[in-house]
Amino acid sequence: MTTGKFITVEGIEGVGKSTNMRRLIDRLESGGKTVVETREPGGTPTAERIREVVLGHAEEPIPATAELLLMFAARSVLVENVIRPALKAGKWVVSDRFVDASRAYQGGGRGIPADRIEALAAWVLDELEPDATLLLDAPVQTGMARTSSRGEPDRLDGEQAAFYSRVRETYLALADASPDRFHIVDASGTIEEVGTRIDEIAARLLSIGH
Amino acid sequence: MTTGKFITVEGIEGVGKSTNMRRLIDRLESGGKTVVETREPGGTPTAERIREVVLGHAEEPIPATAELLLMFAARSVLVENVIRPALKAGKWVVSDRFVDASRAYQGGGRGIPADRIEALAAWVLDELEPDATLLLDAPVQTGMARTSSRGEPDRLDGEQAAFYSRVRETYLALADASPDRFHIVDASGTIEEVGTRIDEIAARLLSIGH
Repeated sequence: MTTGKFITVEGIEGVGKSTNMRRLIDRLESGGKTVVETREPGGTPTAERIREVVLGHAEEPIPATAELLLMFAARSVLVENVIRPALKAGKWVVSDRFVDASRAYQGGGRGIPADRIEALAAWVLDELEPDATLLLDAPVQTGMARTSSRGEPDRLDGEQAAFYSRVRETYLALADASPDRFHIVDASGTIEEVGTRIDEIAARLLSIGH
Repeated sequence: MTTGKFITVEGIEGVGKSTNMRRLIDRLESGGKTVVETREPGGTPTAERIREVVLGHAEEPIPATAELLLMFAARSVLVENVIRPALKAGKWVVSDRFVDASRAYQGGGRGIPADRIEALAAWVLDELEPDATLLLDAPVQTGMARTSSRGEPDRLDGEQAAFYSRVRETYLALADASPDRFHIVDASGTIEEVGTRIDEIAARLLSIGH
């Protein structure tokens, strides 16, 4: 029996993750795969409660280290209770963000040393790695313009453009370091232009997936 | 200006932590100290929300690693937002549990490797260490008898006697390794016997505290 594939979708706010994840999942399902859709932080009842703690408007400042540990705590629950069982059952898993988000946001964005993030990743993931990661990339100004027109910023949305620039640069550096795993998608085009690129990636993943 | 002292109270369930913490704080306040009382996990609005996640009856199993990370996330918030500011302002802090509880429960109890716990402790505490730790010690059966008569067990209370034995042994080993910091209190005596020992410790802490 073959196990499923694990695909993550990454990118800064406003690059169209939701729309394009939907399209990716449609293509994979059309290709005959059973797909479990999830998101980070969250994706299980406990992890969603952790999400509320970390992304809600807190009554007090949350130290960067606490934010990092909460992200990995939620990830641990998601990995053990959702992702591993689904893959083992032969399903495909598509996650809106995963460990690269900690590298980009808590590492690049907040300046937490990479060795701490990699230590946590080793404890929590224990060899699990995405088979493919789609990085939706667009200039920070493009993303920010889209989010602010959508309203309701969460705590992370309240940060500065400089923060998002560091996050974006870290994502691009990660893609550069793992070109086999990463698929960079230029998210600054029209919905159809970006969608066509998503279709190509879906087709490639399906062709090597059985 | 002198900074305050940081005192932690540790022990397994049912050893009388609440009663004896109350007595300790009364003695310190009678000695002229301003005391901030706190508890773990918790002690701040965000940390109390994390407490609900980790100690509440979850809809799903919580992996030991996730539990450990939640404990340290709550600790990070408590340290930065409550403990450090209080000590800096010259106040004394008395906490119902602290980092030794992670060593005893997640380490000894759940078997998480000590090096992971010490790595997290180094990141989160950054040189902060209790000035004194009171370990209320009693045989596991004594503690368990007291808790079960109190009703309303939380998630950790549902574990086995073997678990608590490992926790107790770890606490005793920690005390053995740091005899200057630890004060072992035999908690199997009467309330007055135990209280007299608490008074002695309070007097000693006050005498070296100014």
